[in-house]
Amino acid sequence: MSAPVEFYFDLSSPYGYLAAQKIDALAAKYGRTVDWRPILLGVMFKATGMAPLTEVPMKGEYSKRDFPRSARFHGLSFRMPSRFPIPTQAAARIVLWLKEQDRARAVRVAKAMFHAYFVDDIDISNPDAAAAIAAREGVDPAAARAAVDDPVVKDALKREVEKALARGVFGSPFVIVDDEPFWGLDRFDQIDRWLASGGF
Amino acid sequence: MSAPVEFYFDLSSPYGYLAAQKIDALAAKYGRTVDWRPILLGVMFKATGMAPLTEVPMKGEYSKRDFPRSARFHGLSFRMPSRFPIPTQAAARIVLWLKEQDRARAVRVAKAMFHAYFVDDIDISNPDAAAAIAAREGVDPAAARAAVDDPVVKDALKREVEKALARGVFGSPFVIVDDEPFWGLDRFDQIDRWLASGGF
Repeated sequence: MSAPVEFYFDLSSPYGYLAAQKIDALAAKYGRTVDWRPILLGVMFKATGMAPLTEVPMKGEYSKRDFPRSARFHGLSFRMPSRFPIPTQAAARIVLWLKEQDRARAVRVAKAMFHAYFVDDIDISNPDAAAAIAAREGVDPAAARAAVDDPVVKDALKREVEKALARGVFGSPFVIVDDEPFWGLDRFDQIDRWLASGGF
Repeated sequence: MSAPVEFYFDLSSPYGYLAAQKIDALAAKYGRTVDWRPILLGVMFKATGMAPLTEVPMKGEYSKRDFPRSARFHGLSFRMPSRFPIPTQAAARIVLWLKEQDRARAVRVAKAMFHAYFVDDIDISNPDAAAAIAAREGVDPAAARAAVDDPVVKDALKREVEKALARGVFGSPFVIVDDEPFWGLDRFDQIDRWLASGGF
């Protein structure tokens, strides 16, 4: 039994959102499962000195054009959120808290969070809004809302981000296949060949 | 007659080198020619506040793994140069100077510069070395060496970089197809569809 493909994502990452629509099918093609791991890009940016794409001169303007174009290229819905980027602690804590109980539901909630933010323009940095999105997937909204402020969940997310940094994860999406790191939706073609061939 | 595809590159850019092996065939598939435009990433980095990839914490380590892996993925030779990155004024001036006289030869010399740096580990920041590479393509090495210090050529390259910045070019490779900007070898699949369909 092969190890799961590790899929790291920040719920405020446009390319993370696009990749989230594709990673399960890509892994399944080679009989692999996916371990969905929410991270916080803000912490990564501090470690690398990087900044949110849209705040970099020139690159920011380009990104705002490339996000929707890349979505169209991949046949996916996308609307630039009114507020961008946003802190994703609340949404990520709910996903991580759910993961302990029901991994499949956690994935569905992560996808619902991405959809809410990048299609319906819902500000999922708001804990109540994030809990309401989770409720769409059958989660008790009061319990989800409580998870956002739960010190155990907070600490668990903090440790997740630290572990990701220690693994060399610095962006979103970031995929690790059998210890081989791939940054970006742009590398899904390389991931495909890596999974098919066991490395190249 | 469609306008040429604009291909911007820095001769010290690994992804620029890889893209340089592919851009002519990609454009030719759709009956388009390519305008090869050398730029200086150092100037772009100042404008955007970006840094050479290999100097960014974490991303640098990843890049050193991704460069050769991407080369293998595309079936191209690649060796990480002993000295990286390097200033590419000398090599870029020779290419630009040649372009005024013989565009086809300028392209061959640009490719030879890339090959010398990324396969043969020749430091093309050295003006004599750069002139010697040009000589391999039938260029008079003394004339090429003189072009490096020619104020007219220096000024022409400076204006080229300024024009590129004004066009929104901030990285290498950078391709503009009918005013649509594409950054990175990663976008060659989108360029392909754009050329095929006239936009999407």
